[in-house]
Amino acid sequence: MALKLYYNLMSQPSRALYILLKATKCNFESNYVDLRKGEHFTEGFSKINRLQKIPVIDHNGLLLSESVAIVNYLSREGLIPETLYPRVSRTRALVQEYLEWQHVGLRLHCAMYFRVKYLDPILLGRTPSEEQIKGYEERMVSALELLETKWLGRGTDFIVGNNITVADLWAACELEQPRMAGFDAKDKFPNIATWWAKVRQNFNPHYDEAHIILNKIVQKQQKASKL
Amino acid sequence: MALKLYYNLMSQPSRALYILLKATKCNFESNYVDLRKGEHFTEGFSKINRLQKIPVIDHNGLLLSESVAIVNYLSREGLIPETLYPRVSRTRALVQEYLEWQHVGLRLHCAMYFRVKYLDPILLGRTPSEEQIKGYEERMVSALELLETKWLGRGTDFIVGNNITVADLWAACELEQPRMAGFDAKDKFPNIATWWAKVRQNFNPHYDEAHIILNKIVQKQQKASKL
Repeated sequence: MALKLYYNLMSQPSRALYILLKATKCNFESNYVDLRKGEHFTEGFSKINRLQKIPVIDHNGLLLSESVAIVNYLSREGLIPETLYPRVSRTRALVQEYLEWQHVGLRLHCAMYFRVKYLDPILLGRTPSEEQIKGYEERMVSALELLETKWLGRGTDFIVGNNITVADLWAACELEQPRMAGFDAKDKFPNIATWWAKVRQNFNPHYDEAHIILNKIVQKQQKASKL
Repeated sequence: MALKLYYNLMSQPSRALYILLKATKCNFESNYVDLRKGEHFTEGFSKINRLQKIPVIDHNGLLLSESVAIVNYLSREGLIPETLYPRVSRTRALVQEYLEWQHVGLRLHCAMYFRVKYLDPILLGRTPSEEQIKGYEERMVSALELLETKWLGRGTDFIVGNNITVADLWAACELEQPRMAGFDAKDKFPNIATWWAKVRQNFNPHYDEAHIILNKIVQKQQKASKL
């Protein structure tokens, strides 16, 4: 098969790519990378991606990592519909402006909160102090305020105008991550709540399918916190 | 004039864009943003970029931030030569893979080291502990090791093959930043040292011109540390 995707649905950009390919009926070979077993650190996987990270695609022999580079490439190759990733240069520029901003503007802070509060205690047995969690939460909330007011809340339905694009899908998948650590952005941010529901609806049933395991973890955490 | 650049040469991606436009003889109106005076936080500048960051371009009325989104846009508009930003889809994908990796893979760590060790003491009067500096330095060194071995050190002259691209210029400008805080990557990393000299040479005299103030600060710091 021409296109292979190496991914794990616990990874935000993996989910974004997986949902995009499913929603656009792009045919691909599914290669699940077992992060719990450290499969991304094996010699075999290092030949797929020397940086030992997912997602990765193999497209007719081209190995490519970094989800934003991947979606740009797939769009150039005609595999992503123009509706989701506009080809008009100015509109595309605004979609890319968001995708570039997201790395440190949003993703870093949501991912670090998830890692410190949820993942490190499980993987490393390292329990963060209340003060540490508060610091990570404050930085994440500041980032979410920018999403709420500077990218959303501008009188349009989506991040770039009134049409949904890959920028919205990439952003939504990042916001799912801190839910596993007990933080749901829609509780605090009304613009995010309204927009997020639309993104989910637009990409369903694939959005929910990609988040099955994540949502089970969220439910388990919620039950545990009520005990 | 069709293209305006809002920038400050103390900002890494501002320097990268400035050098690129100068080196490719792209005509642009120069708009210096005085970060020391907090000009990026003014109401006037917020109309240029609501996120209050530089660099920003104004191209016939399109306001665009994020240097990677900007270079992609300028390339689509035919303002960046193909030699520096290949149009062949697979080669372009590899250049973009680096540019996407760089945000958190390299830039974050070099910028944080610079900020904590050099900038915060000046701007906030906040002196970091030896232990804090060590932590930031270790994370930066790990990032530089990836640049040294996974992006360079693969038998080619540049990050993507034997031709210099925007990936090299963007990377080089990031590495200049920690020099102001007393860390020079070429002292520890031979592949980086060889490559860095070639990038500088290729983009000179514009590379050195964009780094005049930065290099003065480096010299001042070196003198002070010898006292």
